[in-house]
Amino acid sequence: MNFASDNWAGAHPKIAESLTRHAGGFAASYGASDLDRAVEKRFNEVFEREVAVFFVATGTAANSLALASVNRPGGVSFCHREAHAIEDECGAPEYFTGGARLHPVDGPLGCIDPVNLKQELKRFNPAFIHAGQPMAVSITQATEVGTLYSLADIAGISAICRDHGLPLHMDGARFANALVSLGVSPADMTWRQGVDIVSFGGTKNGCWCAEALVFMDPSHAKDLPFIRKRAAQLFSKTRFIAAQFDAYLDGDLWLELATHANAMAARLADHIRASERIRLAWAPQANEVFAIMKKSVSEKLHLEGAVFYDWNPPHSEMDRVEEGEIFTRFVTSFATSEEEVDRFGELIA
Amino acid sequence: MNFASDNWAGAHPKIAESLTRHAGGFAASYGASDLDRAVEKRFNEVFEREVAVFFVATGTAANSLALASVNRPGGVSFCHREAHAIEDECGAPEYFTGGARLHPVDGPLGCIDPVNLKQELKRFNPAFIHAGQPMAVSITQATEVGTLYSLADIAGISAICRDHGLPLHMDGARFANALVSLGVSPADMTWRQGVDIVSFGGTKNGCWCAEALVFMDPSHAKDLPFIRKRAAQLFSKTRFIAAQFDAYLDGDLWLELATHANAMAARLADHIRASERIRLAWAPQANEVFAIMKKSVSEKLHLEGAVFYDWNPPHSEMDRVEEGEIFTRFVTSFATSEEEVDRFGELIA
Amino acid sequence: MNFASDNWAGAHPKIAESLTRHAGGFAASYGASDLDRAVEKRFNEVFEREVAVFFVATGTAANSLALASVNRPGGVSFCHREAHAIEDECGAPEYFTGGARLHPVDGPLGCIDPVNLKQELKRFNPAFIHAGQPMAVSITQATEVGTLYSLADIAGISAICRDHGLPLHMDGARFANALVSLGVSPADMTWRQGVDIVSFGGTKNGCWCAEALVFMDPSHAKDLPFIRKRAAQLFSKTRFIAAQFDAYLDGDLWLELATHANAMAARLADHIRASERIRLAWAPQANEVFAIMKKSVSEKLHLEGAVFYDWNPPHSEMDRVEEGEIFTRFVTSFATSEEEVDRFGELIA
Amino acid sequence: MNFASDNWAGAHPKIAESLTRHAGGFAASYGASDLDRAVEKRFNEVFEREVAVFFVATGTAANSLALASVNRPGGVSFCHREAHAIEDECGAPEYFTGGARLHPVDGPLGCIDPVNLKQELKRFNPAFIHAGQPMAVSITQATEVGTLYSLADIAGISAICRDHGLPLHMDGARFANALVSLGVSPADMTWRQGVDIVSFGGTKNGCWCAEALVFMDPSHAKDLPFIRKRAAQLFSKTRFIAAQFDAYLDGDLWLELATHANAMAARLADHIRASERIRLAWAPQANEVFAIMKKSVSEKLHLEGAVFYDWNPPHSEMDRVEEGEIFTRFVTSFATSEEEVDRFGELIA
Repeated sequence: MNFASDNWAGAHPKIAESLTRHAGGFAASYGASDLDRAVEKRFNEVFEREVAVFFVATGTAANSLALASVNRPGGVSFCHREAHAIEDECGAPEYFTGGARLHPVDGPLGCIDPVNLKQELKRFNPAFIHAGQPMAVSITQATEVGTLYSLADIAGISAICRDHGLPLHMDGARFANALVSLGVSPADMTWRQGVDIVSFGGTKNGCWCAEALVFMDPSHAKDLPFIRKRAAQLFSKTRFIAAQFDAYLDGDLWLELATHANAMAARLADHIRASERIRLAWAPQANEVFAIMKKSVSEKLHLEGAVFYDWNPPHSEMDRVEEGEIFTRFVTSFATSEEEVDRFGELIA
Repeated sequence: MNFASDNWAGAHPKIAESLTRHAGGFAASYGASDLDRAVEKRFNEVFEREVAVFFVATGTAANSLALASVNRPGGVSFCHREAHAIEDECGAPEYFTGGARLHPVDGPLGCIDPVNLKQELKRFNPAFIHAGQPMAVSITQATEVGTLYSLADIAGISAICRDHGLPLHMDGARFANALVSLGVSPADMTWRQGVDIVSFGGTKNGCWCAEALVFMDPSHAKDLPFIRKRAAQLFSKTRFIAAQFDAYLDGDLWLELATHANAMAARLADHIRASERIRLAWAPQANEVFAIMKKSVSEKLHLEGAVFYDWNPPHSEMDRVEEGEIFTRFVTSFATSEEEVDRFGELIA
Repeated sequence: MNFASDNWAGAHPKIAESLTRHAGGFAASYGASDLDRAVEKRFNEVFEREVAVFFVATGTAANSLALASVNRPGGVSFCHREAHAIEDECGAPEYFTGGARLHPVDGPLGCIDPVNLKQELKRFNPAFIHAGQPMAVSITQATEVGTLYSLADIAGISAICRDHGLPLHMDGARFANALVSLGVSPADMTWRQGVDIVSFGGTKNGCWCAEALVFMDPSHAKDLPFIRKRAAQLFSKTRFIAAQFDAYLDGDLWLELATHANAMAARLADHIRASERIRLAWAPQANEVFAIMKKSVSEKLHLEGAVFYDWNPPHSEMDRVEEGEIFTRFVTSFATSEEEVDRFGELIA
Repeated sequence: MNFASDNWAGAHPKIAESLTRHAGGFAASYGASDLDRAVEKRFNEVFEREVAVFFVATGTAANSLALASVNRPGGVSFCHREAHAIEDECGAPEYFTGGARLHPVDGPLGCIDPVNLKQELKRFNPAFIHAGQPMAVSITQATEVGTLYSLADIAGISAICRDHGLPLHMDGARFANALVSLGVSPADMTWRQGVDIVSFGGTKNGCWCAEALVFMDPSHAKDLPFIRKRAAQLFSKTRFIAAQFDAYLDGDLWLELATHANAMAARLADHIRASERIRLAWAPQANEVFAIMKKSVSEKLHLEGAVFYDWNPPHSEMDRVEEGEIFTRFVTSFATSEEEVDRFGELIA
């Protein structure tokens, strides 16, 4: 009953197998091998356009380099108050941009409220240099709290970006989970709604270590080779990432794994809805489930072998947690089994 | 006949196999798994003392975070003029330290000349803040030009460091190659000679991606968890690096692979010595061989299937290259075969 | 009727005269002259303890170097959402710290609410490196919206700092205005309540350019000479700042000037209270007055020669501004005359 | 007999007087006052073209922001090994660019040797991202060792810059001294030879604190307002710098002061040439004189009231200093009198 995180899972057998298959022989390093180029082309197919793809080590790196690529002096990027970039990256985005600020925007259930975004942007007057200059908007899909932006939501945010001349970045650490939940194509969820840059995560969905920074318009990525190398994110044996993505994208494995993870989250949520001992914080839309329970209940569940984390509730949802209760997070993955979900269901029944 | 670089090789079968073996099941992420801890302990054995070990994505990251860990405002680190940190890391060390300078020190054949080091240090007066403050010395072992510091050389540099209160860092991207060539222990080559921090490379010697930053004194690494995470270098599924190092260190595989690579370099050098068409720049001491030849010869060799790079000669050795000649680099690895070395030997005979 | 800003005033005649008096002869540069040292001693008297004093070019520099002096990787500093450091320094604090974040804390009327501060700090778990590490708390006295922290308020904030091992910084761009309004001593308003570092501003209160960074404990400022020089903030002819502070502190000129500025603000507020065309946003406690009026009224006042700015209301007070109204700022200074205040009073009567 | 530095002098009476004259009344802050604009226009006349002018606090700031304005990821700027930017700015240029490197180029007597510059540039291959990317060349005029680039020298360097697509920066901390020594116009010494950005210093030549960053092509300075503010270099009461430059440029005061300083240096050099106790290192071309003497002689001169510094000889000239001798620097300024120069002459006769 391990619901600690999707990064507690290892690698899917097909991913591991692909890596082994590409272990032998010589291949050009630093992204120049045939396999690297073949996988880059796969991304063109995935996104239905020519994109620029850069492998990096971590999702934090992808997000940070995305912002570094649009960096401006005194730059301010707007993201949700509980965005991963603000709460979970130890300042990497600010570090990689030499101090460009992440400006928190509020909104319910992990999504930027466009009214708030507009209002915050209004506080920046282009002629008033003291405030700095807006530089980007970043949204997380799926969000940190297991919810989704609809296509219309994304289009709404990107319209505001366009009005202010700002690029729109999507943190897609759980891109696949969002995609299969919405039932749309990668193109639909990104550039067709105005998204410019995507952090495309594979690690949480069955890879060992496979993160890509994808620019919808390659002309915007001209400096990226230097930006990535300067950040010590250029692997030498890049085929070890390419080999993972090769298997990941092959035969829609990535969508299959995400579909499973989401189904396990939905199943878990059903068990929680049926429970009288713990309650669902809100309906999950991807592979994260949040629940509220008494501390004593949590302790008992842990003793009985359930693994999950206490979590900080979003600022916007703090009222949901009563005195004496705790807020908790459960994450499912490709490696989660129905059996362990049901076993947990029995525990809380 | 691929002598392009040791990072054109893939992964040794035992490394790939270990990775596959650890693919299943749940394990704590971010360095907290049992395997992570077991491998950390292996490093204690390797170095014959308790050390602090941090996995990172690239050798550039290891070097840059080493310097970031001893960072000081206006800091100046001293390394050889042709150090990897200066010539091949696209400014990452300066970037990760927010601008601490790498001060080039000259010396023959890739090694810092201690007389020059002392002289440069003398230019810094602690009371003259304009010059900045010395912060570290960094040496590369094996050097970028395939040579070695002897134990006495290292002790000599570290004595200067001690006199000036400076930590000594060793860029060990080819640590194993140096070690087996000198025939000494890791402890001998590092802390017993006064080395404080080691960039311990596994990638060039048979791993996919396995680099570790090792602090001889764990108390000097207290901030490293934050420094690494801030630099987007904390992998989530760290067991994928741990699994590589597990196989790498097991049964002295790492020493065996390095011994082979060095032997191939020596064999290649013998062929070059015997040739009248190309000449050896200097005797290799690890797994890199440098040769000088006419441009026409180089072109012909490439046509005949030999893969190697034109290279910038070190400033100190530029006189060795005559008008019309080019300077070239050949690198051998665990994957280099006697057969291809000999085939190249025939080509140049 | 110029209420644009206290930095639209020039220099007080005594300041200008002191500068001229010290123009001749040779004096050691970079802070080593007799005058520099004498003025440093004056600061010891002002604060009733031995302090470390560093002249810098701007208030933004003082704030930014204060944070740089306590910098930590992944560091997070807490300040009011509308702090100058967040809203008016174009990212300098983040830039000077290489990306350490400013975390906004809400509170009414420009003051950090200690309940909110505690709650935000609770979101940081020392073992959870992803969130980064708390690094400092910074308060502004007088605040950006013309209000004050009482001594008890400051003590309350500093108690929280102590509980979390955090230094407390005070942005005192309008230090003198706060001091005379509270009627306390510099020691009372700072270290006796637990303040560790002060940005001590003279520019807004009658100097040309005189800002000092003051450390209550000189042992905390050991790296500051390098931190300041690295930031290009070490003037060569430092006596030109020392000469200003010499006159500024002499005979309590600084307190006299601040008293006048505050009195002018109070007088202006009285006029606004009496007006039916514009209304006071809240009672001023220093030398800034905020008023709300119809846009048409504002336009007419500007036409009639009143100089003041439209301003972004604090997030906490946005409800005070009705549809069609605008929020405006008026600042008084040593150079504001009763006559122009009263003339404005007549305009709005 | 004070030859410590030109920044040990105070302010010229006309500079001090101008400052006092502009002390009263209200004026727009942050560079928007009438005086600011008038002085900006004066710079257009000085340079015989429309330029963009930015006042900053120090010469280090001017140099650092010049490089920040042309910043590129992995950027490398080329300057003389003993450039002020490398040896005397405590890492500010690297800090302000987030780590862009200063690459030392050798050359005799403080001037970049164009052959060396070309050779170093050749080491950078645009396709080899590991090395980083050339970003700028910076020369110092007058140099740190009191010598000059001729117009032809400057044109030669700028031709190399043009070939590599690099902007050329001139550190003109002693711009006026170079100008009057060469007897040319500001336009001749800068853009007519291909210089793009100038650090225009006034402080060392009679101002309190007056440094300007001047862009020959204003379109290259679009981001500068943000770059400067982010670096805490935007003074609020900018008229205090404008007032200094107003007097400085008025009636060619600046040229007159530099002519005097240079004449004093030449007079001092003549005395040294005539001496048998100390010897001239090389002929001064501006206002700095370098001399070599026995340590015992130096001590005696100090005892007799001469103020000057021991100095690090340039790497290229170290052979000139014999065992037991010391290398020393003498600087003259607008405030140096014939009388004290001659008094020193008597001492060494």
